[in-house]
Order: sequence, then structure tokens, then C-alpha cells
Amino acid sequence: MSQLRITVWNEGVHESTQDPAGMDEYYPGGIHGALASGIGEQIPGATVRTALLDDPEHGLPEEVLADTDVLLWWGHKAHGQVADAVVDRVHQHVLGGMGLLVLHSGHFSKVFTRLLGTTCSLSWRNAAEREVVWTVAPTHPIAAGVPNPVVIPEQETYGEFFDIPVPDELVFISSFSGGEVFRSGVTFHRGQGRIFYFSPGDERYPVYNQPEIKRIIANGIHWAARPGLERTAPAVSNPTRDWYL
Amino acid sequence: MSQLRITVWNEGVHESTQDPAGMDEYYPGGIHGALASGIGEQIPGATVRTALLDDPEHGLPEEVLADTDVLLWWGHKAHGQVADAVVDRVHQHVLGGMGLLVLHSGHFSKVFTRLLGTTCSLSWRNAAEREVVWTVAPTHPIAAGVPNPVVIPEQETYGEFFDIPVPDELVFISSFSGGEVFRSGVTFHRGQGRIFYFSPGDERYPVYNQPEIKRIIANGIHWAARPGLERTAPAVSNPTRDWYL
Amino acid sequence: MSQLRITVWNEGVHESTQDPAGMDEYYPGGIHGALASGIGEQIPGATVRTALLDDPEHGLPEEVLADTDVLLWWGHKAHGQVADAVVDRVHQHVLGGMGLLVLHSGHFSKVFTRLLGTTCSLSWRNAAEREVVWTVAPTHPIAAGVPNPVVIPEQETYGEFFDIPVPDELVFISSFSGGEVFRSGVTFHRGQGRIFYFSPGDERYPVYNQPEIKRIIANGIHWAARPGLERTAPAVSNPTRDWYL
Amino acid sequence: MSQLRITVWNEGVHESTQDPAGMDEYYPGGIHGALASGIGEQIPGATVRTALLDDPEHGLPEEVLADTDVLLWWGHKAHGQVADAVVDRVHQHVLGGMGLLVLHSGHFSKVFTRLLGTTCSLSWRNAAEREVVWTVAPTHPIAAGVPNPVVIPEQETYGEFFDIPVPDELVFISSFSGGEVFRSGVTFHRGQGRIFYFSPGDERYPVYNQPEIKRIIANGIHWAARPGLERTAPAVSNPTRDWYL
Repeated sequence: MSQLRITVWNEGVHESTQDPAGMDEYYPGGIHGALASGIGEQIPGATVRTALLDDPEHGLPEEVLADTDVLLWWGHKAHGQVADAVVDRVHQHVLGGMGLLVLHSGHFSKVFTRLLGTTCSLSWRNAAEREVVWTVAPTHPIAAGVPNPVVIPEQETYGEFFDIPVPDELVFISSFSGGEVFRSGVTFHRGQGRIFYFSPGDERYPVYNQPEIKRIIANGIHWAARPGLERTAPAVSNPTRDWYL
Repeated sequence: MSQLRITVWNEGVHESTQDPAGMDEYYPGGIHGALASGIGEQIPGATVRTALLDDPEHGLPEEVLADTDVLLWWGHKAHGQVADAVVDRVHQHVLGGMGLLVLHSGHFSKVFTRLLGTTCSLSWRNAAEREVVWTVAPTHPIAAGVPNPVVIPEQETYGEFFDIPVPDELVFISSFSGGEVFRSGVTFHRGQGRIFYFSPGDERYPVYNQPEIKRIIANGIHWAARPGLERTAPAVSNPTRDWYL
Repeated sequence: MSQLRITVWNEGVHESTQDPAGMDEYYPGGIHGALASGIGEQIPGATVRTALLDDPEHGLPEEVLADTDVLLWWGHKAHGQVADAVVDRVHQHVLGGMGLLVLHSGHFSKVFTRLLGTTCSLSWRNAAEREVVWTVAPTHPIAAGVPNPVVIPEQETYGEFFDIPVPDELVFISSFSGGEVFRSGVTFHRGQGRIFYFSPGDERYPVYNQPEIKRIIANGIHWAARPGLERTAPAVSNPTRDWYL
Repeated sequence: MSQLRITVWNEGVHESTQDPAGMDEYYPGGIHGALASGIGEQIPGATVRTALLDDPEHGLPEEVLADTDVLLWWGHKAHGQVADAVVDRVHQHVLGGMGLLVLHSGHFSKVFTRLLGTTCSLSWRNAAEREVVWTVAPTHPIAAGVPNPVVIPEQETYGEFFDIPVPDELVFISSFSGGEVFRSGVTFHRGQGRIFYFSPGDERYPVYNQPEIKRIIANGIHWAARPGLERTAPAVSNPTRDWYL
């Protein structure tokens, strides 16, 4: 049984504004609820919290982050409303070893762009195209047990150029009916922290209900988690000569 | 004016067997002729040789390789007929700093699989699908001046998993009408040598006549070339302490 | 003759405070002067500007950056005094294709940490130890013509763990008399920009007067420069289906 | 309790020739015995086999490899005596997913050079210098619980340039008393297989008896192992269009 402590953050704007209409049919508990439910199925015994933009401190006070092995981040409409103090806190925890999964439109979140240093811009088109997710790193733990390819019947199209640093590991590449390609599953390391960005999952399509997608997200959590690690970001030191002898 | 010395190797089997029929309409000088012609346009002043499987020593005796800054390799039907002694020689020259461009079905050539250590297998389908070549490394010299994307109206489909080592640089990713994706432009470094693999270009479609493709190949040649470098593969040494002082 | 436009930025605090005493003996024109002089020797015909913290807008107004192919950054004591507006501007220019060389204690500059997303912390010791700079990427343009190793008789010791993202390319690794190692020459790509960090060069030792170091810096400039590129950072787009046909 | 199946291969020449004299004092069971003993301590429940050059088929018949999750390879004097048929077999198993740890002078083994495609040459000096092993990838599983640095009082000196492909992950960098540096812990992926090369460990010094070294090797085994994976190397396929729908 896993002892992993997982926090799913969602801005919750699509849910609170009931936009798109009908989202509650496939995501009755919201996007965060769907994610939490999938994690519960895939990682029995894990502790799964959810946190929302409208919660005090966006649901991410120091004590929650200190009690989180892996944080998932879903945002879209309200990136600008996320307080810089919370972004600072999440940033520090990632540098100290908290795992981070950034999902879909979270590419434009403050925390992701700050960790990467680029615009994280991309091309997009909302046209219910078919996305096909191909594994290009079959040895990667995140690809374990994942069919190659995974077919998502309808999804928002994301296309290159995706303005991210060269990923440390490129796990998945997607194609879309319109011919676009996208580096849809990529990892980064920052300080002591492991970061997985995974692009499938839009508010208009029930992507997070697909078993293969649940598996990928669970694999990402296992890969990013560093349970037992002391949560300390790297820091400058000034050792004397031969200090290590 | 460039002083680059370029050798285009082609097994020449499609040409000698006139298979596919009609290939001489778009490639009247053979695949090697088309490649040489494009290079001549793009790199004025370069010296461009061609060499064929049926030439003595496959057209690649020691003196030719010693006089070659960048070697292009196109093979398909006759990989097994390439003499191991020639493969050894090409291998050594790459390790010593000769640039190498491996094209399309050359992925299964002896020299490429030996340099990479993997099977270099892939999925393929001959269905005249549209290939769209996307740039994912806009800072890379090989992408300079290349439109994003490049559209190839008809091409053989190559798909992942492409069993290569993780590339040092991933420059292009292609999608195909059938939904497959392929890491179509990738670089590797071996010893002193720079290697560029570029997948577009099949015997059935006039891909090497497209200006954008000519540009990519010329960029690859410029990137891989190390003119003036002494052609010496790395070797073991046994220096005394403080030898460098 | 190169047409490269190069700007050398130095905070200038060591110079204005005459600390360390005697620095003006080996750097009579300041650190920026030494760097500019070396560049002038190595890249004849280049236009070399210098800019200082105390200049209006730190010497880096929009028109200067727009007229700069490669910016060198040397800072140590006054990182916090660099105005965020200037950091924003430099950041945008790098994303748009301006080359950036960050030198030595510039690892803690605002612009470098923002581009990388990490603390960029390290261990250090000011003990006039010998640094030996080893090439581990002999195919890299920055290593061209550089002896392996380069010996720096006295230098500040920098040691791992250096909290940077995994570099895109690791060109040099240094050892120090005290036994520390440091990834002393590393590259990153951000947006359209190429970044080279090179650690040798402290205010107390005349490192920038060494010919091999001048060569490395000139190589870095050539590698990072993208003359002729339109200076535009990547941006989001929303193309219609089949836009590229 | 681990169910991992581990095979330690040693050419066994230093043992059979009693050269260097006295090796049996610190390695009474040979190098393979020391490695097996360390693994037994670190990975309780693992099945650990040893195999020697002089065993039939070098102790590596098909049924042994098929029953091996991770193979360790130690060789030095007799690389040329390893039968090509055995090298072929090991190569295929790695491509199919068997983990491989190559140790110290195994850098020149047939199987390692075949997997990497380079000369794997380096500089060396047998001078009982102190080696200090620094972690540069603190997020990597192989570095988990490993002190930074690890000090090896006496070891053969290995120095750059180490002619390997750019590693997929650089975990450890070593310095030596003589000032050399070496990329001493590096990973590669080939096909379905994970490969870890770790340079410490010479026949003249009791390196494999150090607890930190045992920990690194055990971490490497855990990282490289893919228990439960069907042992199949990637292969070419020719699917029809829409095969995945």
C-alpha cells in the first residue's frame, strides 16, 4: 500500500462558471475530482487532497505543501489570479524535492513558466480533433504499461513550436487529426524536484476518465515522488579545503 | 565560396533495376544525382562526389574518405552487400571527425546501426501519405531558414517506436496522414564526428527535389562538417602525473 | 570580418570600490575592459560595447539590446541592484534570439536564475587554487582550438552541486586543487536564444587575460550569435485547421 | 523482499593468475565474489549468480540471460577472448530489456563498445591517487542515499576525454589527486534496456568493499532492472493504416 501524499490543485473556474455547459456530466466532481478519483483507483492507499483557487491561500498553505509528495496543477482561465506568494512557495517546495505534475493548459501557469524560464507558448485549436499519443521512451517508468499509442477520440489540438527548454526526457509525442505534433509528455528536473508535464486533458472532453490516461498520471506521480526526502532546496555553501576528508 | 568536400553514397539498386518504374522521371541522375544537384545549388563551390555500391570498394577507398568532410548515405535494398571493411573504414572516419548524414532507409545500414548500437527498427507503410515536418529546435543550425512546417505531399510513412538511442538533439518531428509520428531529424555525436539522420526521401517520391528539403540537407552538411580538423579517432593514453603543467 | 555586435555588461562594483586592491594592475580597464579587449583580439571587426550598472538603465536600454547580437554578463556584489525592468528586457531579448554569455559569479544574477528557474547555488572557496578545465565535448564549436586541458594557475574554487537544470550541452568540467569538480562550461537554449555559462574569471585573478580563456569566450560568442534573425520571442497562436497547406 | 535476479560476470583473469599479488586479501572470493557479497547485503532476497570467462559459454548461456534481470560486467585483460556469440546474446538481451552495469575497465569490453558505437577510450594512470566522486544529479535514483562526495582513498586514475556518446544522464563526476576529471557514473538507454557505467573499482584497490560503493551499485541495479518485462528487442513492423483504432 502506498503512503504517497498527493494534492490535486485546480483553479476551478470552469466548474464555478459552469462553462462549458455539460462538463458536470463527465466530470461531476470537477476536473480535480476526476483526477483524484483516477489516482485513488491507480494508487491504492495514497492520500489524495484537492485544493482550489478560491480556497484560503488557494488551498496551498505551507503545511499542505510540506505534507505533499506530489502536486498536480490544472489551470486555464485564472493564471493571473494565483498569488505570487503561493507561487513562491510552490517553487521552493519543488526545488526542495516535491514532485510536480503540470497538466494541459497549466503550461501557462506562473509556477511552470517560472520553473522553465521560457514563454511556454504553443499553437492551439479547439476543434475536437483526435489525438494519438505515441511513446518514444519505452524504458521510461512513466511509459510502463501504457499502450502505444493511446488514442484520445476528441481533444483540443496543441501544436509545436512549444516554447519549453529542451526536456530532460521526452516520453510522449502526440499527433492530431489536423497534422500538428506536440511533445505531450516531457520531464524536467529543478533542484531536488522532478517535474512531469502532460498535455492531454481539456475541460471539454472527458480525457481524465480514460484508463490509459489515469495510468500515465499515476506513473508520473510514482516517478516524481521522493517520499522520505528532507525538503530542502539547494543552497550556497563555503566549505574549507579538505572538508570532505 | 565553400571549400567543403562532400561525398554522396547511394547503393544504386533502385536505379540499376529500374524499380520503381518511372523513378528516372523525377530522379534522372538517380537518388545520388538528385542529392548532389541539390547540394550544388545550396553550397556553391563545394566539391561533390558520388559513390555507388558497385564501384570498387563501393567508391569509398581510404583516399576518398580522407578527402571527404561530409558523407551522405542512402541505402535500402542492399545493406547486407556493403563490405565490412568499408563499414569499418567509414566508422573510423566518423570517429575521427568526418560528418555523416544518414538518409531515410539508411537507418538500417550497417554503419548507422554500428554507430548507434541499437536495432534502428521502426514501423513503416508505403501508402503515399502526406508527411508534415515540424521544427522543435528553432535554435538549431539545421533548422535555419526552414519553414515550420515543411509539407511533403507524398512520402513513405515511418512511425515510432524508432529504436535509436536518445538523440543528442531532436530537430524535427514528423506527422503522417495516418496519424503516426516520427523523430525525423535527429543528431548524434560519436568520437570527433557529428551525425545527422533525416528520414524524408524515398525512392518513390521526388522529395529530394523540394527546395526546403535541399535546404535542410545543406544545413546538415554545414553543421556536420569540421573542415581543417585532423582526422584522428580518440585513443587511449597513459600520461604521467602533472603531464599538463 | 565579423559584423557581430557585442555588449559586455559589468556591474563595475569591484572597479568603483577598488576592491580588491591591485585589480587595476591586471585589469586596468576593469573586468569589462579586459573582456572587450580579448574579444577585439579574437573577433576582428566586431563592434564591442561596454555597459555598467551605474549607466542610465544600466547601459541596457531597448535600443542597445536591439543592436546586440551577444550580451556578456559579469556581476557579483550588486545582483539585487539590477532593476527588474532591465531584467525583463534582457529576458525578452534572449527569448527572441539574443545570445547570452553568463560569466563566473553571474550565476547568481537575476537574469540567469530567471532563465533557468533554479537557485543556481554552488559551493565556493576563495583560496587561490589551481583550476584545470577539461573538454568533455570535443565536437562542440565552443571547444574548437581549445587545449585540453586549460590550466588556470589561481582561481576561486567553485564546486558541485551546482543547482542548474541539466545543461543541454556539457562542454567543460573543471577540477580544483582541493578536489572539487564543477561543470564550468554549459549551454542552455531558451526560446530563440542560446546561452553559455562559463565559470572561470574572478575579480582577484587575471583569468580573462589568458589566451585560451579569450578563445573560449570568443567561441562562445560565435556559437551564441544569431545575426540576421528577427528578434521575436515565441508566442501563442491559434491557427485554423490546414493552415499550413 | 526483492525477487531480482542478478548475474555478476567477471573475466577472472586477475584471480586465476594471482596478479596483483595480495588481491585475495581484500577480495578473497575474487572481484565477482566481492560484488556478489555487496549486492547480497544491499538487496536482501535477490538471487545473485556469478559467471566467469572460463565457464562454458562464459557462464552466460541463453537460459542464464533469460533468467537475469541485471547483468554486471567486469573485464580487463581478456576482452578479446569473449566469444562474439556471447556478445551477440548479451547485446540482444540488453535491447530486450535486461539491465546492464558495466564496471571500471569494462569500458573496453566488446559488449559496451558495441552498445555505444565509440572507442570508449580514455586516459589512465596507475598511481594510487585519491578519487573523489561527486553527485551532479541529486534527483537520480542512483544517487539516492549516497554521500556527496564519496572519497576513495586509492584508485586507478581515469581521465577525460572519455570517448562515449553524450550520456543520457550524468550522475557522478570524479576528480583525482592528479587533477584529472572523469564522468564516472553515466547512464544510457538502448532498445528496452537500461545501462549504467560506473568507473570506480580496480583490481589493485578494495573499492568494492566500501559501503558507499556498494550502495551505488545496488542503486544502479534497482534502476536498471525491469522485472516482469517481456524480453523482446524492438523490431520492424508494417502496420496497415488505422491499425491502432
